[in-house]
Amino acid sequence: MKMPYIIEKKRDGKDLSREEIEFLVRGIADGTIPDYQISAWAMAVYFRGMNPRETRDLALAMAYSGEVIELSAVEGVKVDKHSTGGVGDKTTLVVIPLVAATGVPVAKMSGRGLGHTGGTIDKFESITGFKVEMAYPAFLQQVSQIKAAVVSQSGNLVPADKRLYAIRDVTATIDSIPLIASSVMSKKIASGAEGIVLDVKVGSGAFMKSYEKASQLAKTMIDIGRGAGRKVAALLSNMDQPLGNAVGNALEVKEAIDTLQGQGPPDLEELSLELAAQMIVLGEKAASINDARDLARAALKSGLGLVSWKQMVETQGGELNYSLPSYGLPEAAIKERILADKRAYIENLDALKIGQAAMLLGAGRERLGDIIDYAVGIELLKKPGDLVEAGDTLAIIHANDPGRLEMARKILLDAYHFSDEAVEKKPLIIETIS
Amino acid sequence: MKMPYIIEKKRDGKDLSREEIEFLVRGIADGTIPDYQISAWAMAVYFRGMNPRETRDLALAMAYSGEVIELSAVEGVKVDKHSTGGVGDKTTLVVIPLVAATGVPVAKMSGRGLGHTGGTIDKFESITGFKVEMAYPAFLQQVSQIKAAVVSQSGNLVPADKRLYAIRDVTATIDSIPLIASSVMSKKIASGAEGIVLDVKVGSGAFMKSYEKASQLAKTMIDIGRGAGRKVAALLSNMDQPLGNAVGNALEVKEAIDTLQGQGPPDLEELSLELAAQMIVLGEKAASINDARDLARAALKSGLGLVSWKQMVETQGGELNYSLPSYGLPEAAIKERILADKRAYIENLDALKIGQAAMLLGAGRERLGDIIDYAVGIELLKKPGDLVEAGDTLAIIHANDPGRLEMARKILLDAYHFSDEAVEKKPLIIETIS
Repeated sequence: MKMPYIIEKKRDGKDLSREEIEFLVRGIADGTIPDYQISAWAMAVYFRGMNPRETRDLALAMAYSGEVIELSAVEGVKVDKHSTGGVGDKTTLVVIPLVAATGVPVAKMSGRGLGHTGGTIDKFESITGFKVEMAYPAFLQQVSQIKAAVVSQSGNLVPADKRLYAIRDVTATIDSIPLIASSVMSKKIASGAEGIVLDVKVGSGAFMKSYEKASQLAKTMIDIGRGAGRKVAALLSNMDQPLGNAVGNALEVKEAIDTLQGQGPPDLEELSLELAAQMIVLGEKAASINDARDLARAALKSGLGLVSWKQMVETQGGELNYSLPSYGLPEAAIKERILADKRAYIENLDALKIGQAAMLLGAGRERLGDIIDYAVGIELLKKPGDLVEAGDTLAIIHANDPGRLEMARKILLDAYHFSDEAVEKKPLIIETIS
Repeated sequence: MKMPYIIEKKRDGKDLSREEIEFLVRGIADGTIPDYQISAWAMAVYFRGMNPRETRDLALAMAYSGEVIELSAVEGVKVDKHSTGGVGDKTTLVVIPLVAATGVPVAKMSGRGLGHTGGTIDKFESITGFKVEMAYPAFLQQVSQIKAAVVSQSGNLVPADKRLYAIRDVTATIDSIPLIASSVMSKKIASGAEGIVLDVKVGSGAFMKSYEKASQLAKTMIDIGRGAGRKVAALLSNMDQPLGNAVGNALEVKEAIDTLQGQGPPDLEELSLELAAQMIVLGEKAASINDARDLARAALKSGLGLVSWKQMVETQGGELNYSLPSYGLPEAAIKERILADKRAYIENLDALKIGQAAMLLGAGRERLGDIIDYAVGIELLKKPGDLVEAGDTLAIIHANDPGRLEMARKILLDAYHFSDEAVEKKPLIIETIS
């Protein structure tokens, strides 16, 4: 089999056979196909797309291109969740303990953040002492015992996806639904969960700006997962504005703990409960989604979710002090209030700009390898739909560097759009596909 | 300027600015842009095309990416010709001496062949002693003195095109008119000629299979040349069947000499005369194309073209013996006749297959670096339109290896298509664009 022929076939709009896709993925993983052929192929896919069978074959071949996690030693139906990435999205931190509290095992592998969206691993690492690297037997044992564990994605997982993604990232070939879907799902399949709940973000702060593209991505990922014998459900959720009020690693951990104590922002609580409910259904602890919602809500109200959280943090070495308002998380040196200068309704709060402002403060990475400042970030005290009076605090910037603070302030102010008239809130959960 | 942005812009169908194209070409030439970004960009160009201004900018930037030949020391209007590549196309060997004989200087830089089409330099190298490498001052001096010289394209010419072409060749991105046109014209512009005649081949043995694509390629190349201040004319000529009767290096040199002696095949003579006439017009030795045709014909009939040929070959060290039927060119050990098995008209003779058969015999390179056997090739005694009787010789295969002979015979037989009814000959010169 020759790579130029495979590129040409895709370029000409023809379908690649399973054998051709397996040849391609093997060559990506073992390095026998050079970068320049991979990028030309990816650009041809950008223009020509892939049919559902090709997309499934690609995801499967990538999933099995390296190490595959075997979770069968853990009792129960293991479930996982994946968010396509948003600003202020700390649902994983809330959802894992809620689901674990109902007895559904969650063996979570997460990644670090890049660009304006945060990463779950970075959030956990803002807890002093929290270990995200764990030997495989210890990981399985923790999931068996307390139903919850979160680790950094193993370096040996999906090597083909890793190389392909790195090439796509610098060749303007990220924005292709079959390539995005197979990249995400190859990791989920290799991570071993039997049930996968997808949170597909739509809006200015999300990768998918339109409902149509988000819906297409969700359906493509569901098709891949089911093709691989996994149970899959997906939510489409709004990401025009940040989720919750906190953006920045330690601030988000604090907000997650607040939420587990029943004192979180309503949007974060709503989405976390719905994701948890979907996971509980896939984990076969409830016969219907309504029963599952009741179970998730009960785990929250009873405080059992918080107990699960504390167990997981402690088991993984994390040091928190729940009697302090900051829970002992790192705090920034400067806390600067941003005030409203007139009476108005907040019409819009651009999630992308908030994410960029937080990244500028040091909460995220512009480039792989950048060092993160866990303490910095933004607290949003007012959100779209709210009426503010002149002098009200819109937000608090948590910074450690006055120069970065100034840059972030400009972008933050730019993110707010005001209106003289009352503004209707958009629904958070747009659709459930299950 | 960042390459991913340039790729994305082209991917999204936007036009690249001159500055962006110059940045790109500089990065291709100096190696600062990696292969994988070049191939992704080329694939985006395959799908999105380039407008005339972008195409001119690309050709110009490539032309000036390395050494540029300065011919002003040679008196007169220097002219050049280029063929897009065909089977049995030895017109350059006939045209250079005819044009030179009328006083128009031809400083020819040519390339070697690859695939099923031959290369002019390979043909000249089949003459014992013929040197295709020459120091720059000697090259200029020869053109000044005898109006004709042919050398192998300098290694320092158009480095950007060299790298880009090598990448395109293995990433299914050859087949793009703006990329083909700017590749050809960058070399012609860098080679220094003031007048350029293009022979764009159309048909089964040509790169352009359809009249529409060939015509578009010709117009694009003319536009580039004129944008660079050169005089340009183009012919579209048929390449459904090989040109002339000989295919293979020494056989083609022999046929070129026959033609200069007035004993060549009519199609080769016709096309050579027309190309020469177009060059004579651009070289300002005739006021009209009709006058130029008369001059070209006179150079042929008078034998002055042959004199020019002999001067050039001798000056460049070539050893020929014009009293021998083979002119002292290398001859193959095996000459095998292919006979017709029934009475029929030849309807079609697939140039691509003839080219492939010749390549299999060793007349061409499958890969860069393959060694050529100058003696081998195919003599076509019957061409489309001819009526053959059972037992007539269709062709003679010149081979040095019985195994290769067998492979070539099969493909050769496959190239002939017969008909019971008389077949009309297709016109050789389809169109002149000047």
